[in-house]
Amino acid sequence: MVNHPRDIQVDIHRLRADIESLGRIGRDPRGGLSRPSFSPGDREARAWLRDKIEKAGLRYHQDGAGNIFGRLGEGGPVVLAGSHIDTVINGGQFDGAAGVLAGLECLRRIREERLQLARPVGVVSFTDEEGNLVGDFLGSRAFTGRLDPREVEGGLTASGRPLRDVLEGTGLSVVTILRAHAERPAVDAYLELHIEQGPTLEAAGTPIGIVDRIAGKSYRLCSYIGKAEHGGTTPIERRRDAFLAAADFALRGTRLVVSRHRDGLMTIGRVSLSPGAFSVVPGQADFSLDIRSASADTLRGMGSELLELAGEVAAERDVSFRSRLADETEPVRLPEKLLALFEEECDALGYPRLRLASGAGHDAQIMSSITEAGLIFIPCAGGVSHAPDETVDWEDLEKGANLLLRSLIRSASRGS
Amino acid sequence: MVNHPRDIQVDIHRLRADIESLGRIGRDPRGGLSRPSFSPGDREARAWLRDKIEKAGLRYHQDGAGNIFGRLGEGGPVVLAGSHIDTVINGGQFDGAAGVLAGLECLRRIREERLQLARPVGVVSFTDEEGNLVGDFLGSRAFTGRLDPREVEGGLTASGRPLRDVLEGTGLSVVTILRAHAERPAVDAYLELHIEQGPTLEAAGTPIGIVDRIAGKSYRLCSYIGKAEHGGTTPIERRRDAFLAAADFALRGTRLVVSRHRDGLMTIGRVSLSPGAFSVVPGQADFSLDIRSASADTLRGMGSELLELAGEVAAERDVSFRSRLADETEPVRLPEKLLALFEEECDALGYPRLRLASGAGHDAQIMSSITEAGLIFIPCAGGVSHAPDETVDWEDLEKGANLLLRSLIRSASRGS
Repeated sequence: MVNHPRDIQVDIHRLRADIESLGRIGRDPRGGLSRPSFSPGDREARAWLRDKIEKAGLRYHQDGAGNIFGRLGEGGPVVLAGSHIDTVINGGQFDGAAGVLAGLECLRRIREERLQLARPVGVVSFTDEEGNLVGDFLGSRAFTGRLDPREVEGGLTASGRPLRDVLEGTGLSVVTILRAHAERPAVDAYLELHIEQGPTLEAAGTPIGIVDRIAGKSYRLCSYIGKAEHGGTTPIERRRDAFLAAADFALRGTRLVVSRHRDGLMTIGRVSLSPGAFSVVPGQADFSLDIRSASADTLRGMGSELLELAGEVAAERDVSFRSRLADETEPVRLPEKLLALFEEECDALGYPRLRLASGAGHDAQIMSSITEAGLIFIPCAGGVSHAPDETVDWEDLEKGANLLLRSLIRSASRGS
Repeated sequence: MVNHPRDIQVDIHRLRADIESLGRIGRDPRGGLSRPSFSPGDREARAWLRDKIEKAGLRYHQDGAGNIFGRLGEGGPVVLAGSHIDTVINGGQFDGAAGVLAGLECLRRIREERLQLARPVGVVSFTDEEGNLVGDFLGSRAFTGRLDPREVEGGLTASGRPLRDVLEGTGLSVVTILRAHAERPAVDAYLELHIEQGPTLEAAGTPIGIVDRIAGKSYRLCSYIGKAEHGGTTPIERRRDAFLAAADFALRGTRLVVSRHRDGLMTIGRVSLSPGAFSVVPGQADFSLDIRSASADTLRGMGSELLELAGEVAAERDVSFRSRLADETEPVRLPEKLLALFEEECDALGYPRLRLASGAGHDAQIMSSITEAGLIFIPCAGGVSHAPDETVDWEDLEKGANLLLRSLIRSASRGS
C-alpha cells in the first residue's frame, strides 16, 4: 500500500480562483457564459487550461477530438478525473468547469505531496459535452469509439455551420476526430465531479450525491400535419389546426408522465409552426420530445404510451402525426465497486451523502462503456443550471473536491 | 342615361387565359405562387400587368406606392375595379389576381363595346395587400392616406430586410409612398371581386356572395414567461414551463371563442420558444394571437375575455403573461346603396346570391374610408386560400365578373 494520507485536502481558495478566472472567459452579454466548443470563447478557455496544466507540472496532451489531458506519472492504465469546459449558450460557470478544475486541483495536490501511486493519474476536459456541434458528448464519444461517422462527416453543427468550418485553425478535422479512439491511452477508471443540476441535494441539505444511475433519454422529432387555412375565414370547427394538436398532446402527455411514470420526465423544448403567419391556421407543427428515465423499463413504457397518445390526439383532431428518433441513450448503472469506494471515503471525511440518479447525461455515462466510471454530485443553488445564475456553495465544492481527491488516490493505488 | 346593354358579358376564355398566364409568374417550388410585393416574381408580374393594361388600350399609371392603374375615359371622379396581384408565400393564383384581371376584362369589354359612360373607369392593383412588407394593405392605406409614417420610416419588412432595400430599383421610396395619397385622383366608387376564402358559398351552392360587413381584427403579440431549467433534472411539478402555459391558453381560449362567441374567430399562427433547446424547459413562449369578428361588440368582448383567461392561466401555472397590440382594424359595414345595386344586377342576370360577412380583410375595407366600396365574393373550392390548391369554378368566376361589369357600368353611369 502506497502513501494514502487521510489528511490530504484540496486548496479551495486556489480552486475557487481557477473557477472564477475561467468564468471570465466567453462572457455572454446576457450575463452568463457562451463557450460552445471551438467558439472564440472556448478557444481562449482551451489555451487558458493548457497553460494551467503546464504550470501545474502536468504533461499536456490534446487528442484528435480536441479532448485536453494533463497527466502525472508514467506507464499503465491511467485513472482520469474530469468533465468539460464548454458551455451551453448563456450558461453558467460550474457545469463542467467544476469537474475539470477540481480534477486539476487534485493532481496539483498529489504532485505537491509527492504521493507515489501505483498508476498514473490524469485530468481530462472532453470536447463539446453540451452538444453544440453534432450531438451531445462528441469528445467522450470520440474517445470511446462510440461516434457514428455519419454524424460528423459533412454534418452541419447546431448553428448551421459545417463542422469543417468550425474546426478551422484548430489542427483538428473530421478524420482526426474519428481516429481519436484508436490512439487513446488505456484507462483504469474515470471519476467525474459535477453540479447536480437538480434540487434533490439542496432540499435534503446534503453536500454529496453519489450517482448510482444516469438516466437514459430518447430525443424524438415530432410533427402534426393538418391544414393551413385562412385564419379569418375558416370556422374553428372546420379547422385541422396542427398547433392545437401539439398543444393538446403536450398537456395530456405531461399529465400521463406525472400520473403514470413518477421516475420519468418529458420536455418539449422546441416548437415551430408553418407557414408561421399571424393569420394562417398552422398546417404543420414540428416539435421536439425529450423523455428521460433512469429506468430502462420506464423509458420504454413511457415512450410507447406517449406515441400512442400522440396518435389518439391526431385521430381526434383529424390531423396526422409522424415522428422519428433523433437520439437515444440507454440508462446506465454505475459500478457498485466505485459507489462503495466513494461512500467509504465520504464516511471517512465525515461528509453526509446520499445516492441518487442523474437526470442529465454526463461524459461518465459514455466513459462507462470502456472503464469503471463514477460520478459525484454537489448541490447547486435552486437546482439551477444552464443559466447565468447557476451557482454553488464553496464549502460544498470543497467537500466534493476532497472526495474526488481521496477517491482518485485510492483508485490509483489499487492493485499496487 | 347612356348605353347600358343588358347583354354585355365578359369573355371568360380571355379572363381565364390571363389568370393562367399570371399564375405562371413567381412559382414556388412547393407548388404555389410566391409573389410578395417587389420580389422578383412580383416585379415580373407588375411588368406583365403593365403590358396587359397598355395592350388593352388603357392609360397606364403607377403611383408613389407602386399601386398600378389602367384608366379609360377622362375627367371627374373615377369608378375603380380592382384588388391586388401580390401573394402570400406559397399561395394561390386567384386570391387578388381574380379581382384585378376581372376588372381589366371589364374595362376591355367596355372599350370594345365603345360604351359612353358618365364617369371614367379604372382598374387598380394595390401594392402588398398581403402584408409581406410592413403590415397589411400598404398600397390601399398609402392611397387613402391611412398609413402611419412610423411603420414605413426605417421599418423592417416581415423578411427582416429594410423596406428601403426591398424598394431598390423600383423608383419608389418611403417618401413617395407617404406622398401617394396627396396625388390620388378623385374616386367615385371602388368595386372589388374576390374569392371568398371560406366555405359558406360553396356549402350553400351559391355562385355570388354580396359582402355586407368586413370583419375587424386585433393582432396581439403575447408572451408567457416562466423559467428555463434543465429538462433532465427538474421535476415536472417544480417547473414553470412557458410552453405548457401557451398550450393551455390555446386550448381553453379556442373553447371560449367557440362556446361564447359564435361570430368570432381566434388563431395562433406563430409560436417561438426560448431558449429553444431540446433539453431545456421553455423559459419563454412568444405567440401571436389573431382575433376577428364582423361585430365590434364581439371583437371587444372576446378580446377582453381572452386576456382575462391568459392571466388566469399564468396565475395557475406560476408564470407571467404580457402582451401588446400589434395591429387593429375596426369591423366595416359596406354601404347599403351598393349592396342594393349588386343585388339588382345579380337578379337581372339571374344569378343566385346571398349576403355574407368577410372574415378576411380586403382593400375594399380600406377604400371604404374615402369612397363607396363594394365587395363581391365567388366560391373557392373547399374554402381554401393562401395555399397552392386554391381554385375556383370558372363558371362562378364568369358570373362574378359579369356582375362586376354590370355594376361598374351602372356606377359609372350614375348622375349622368
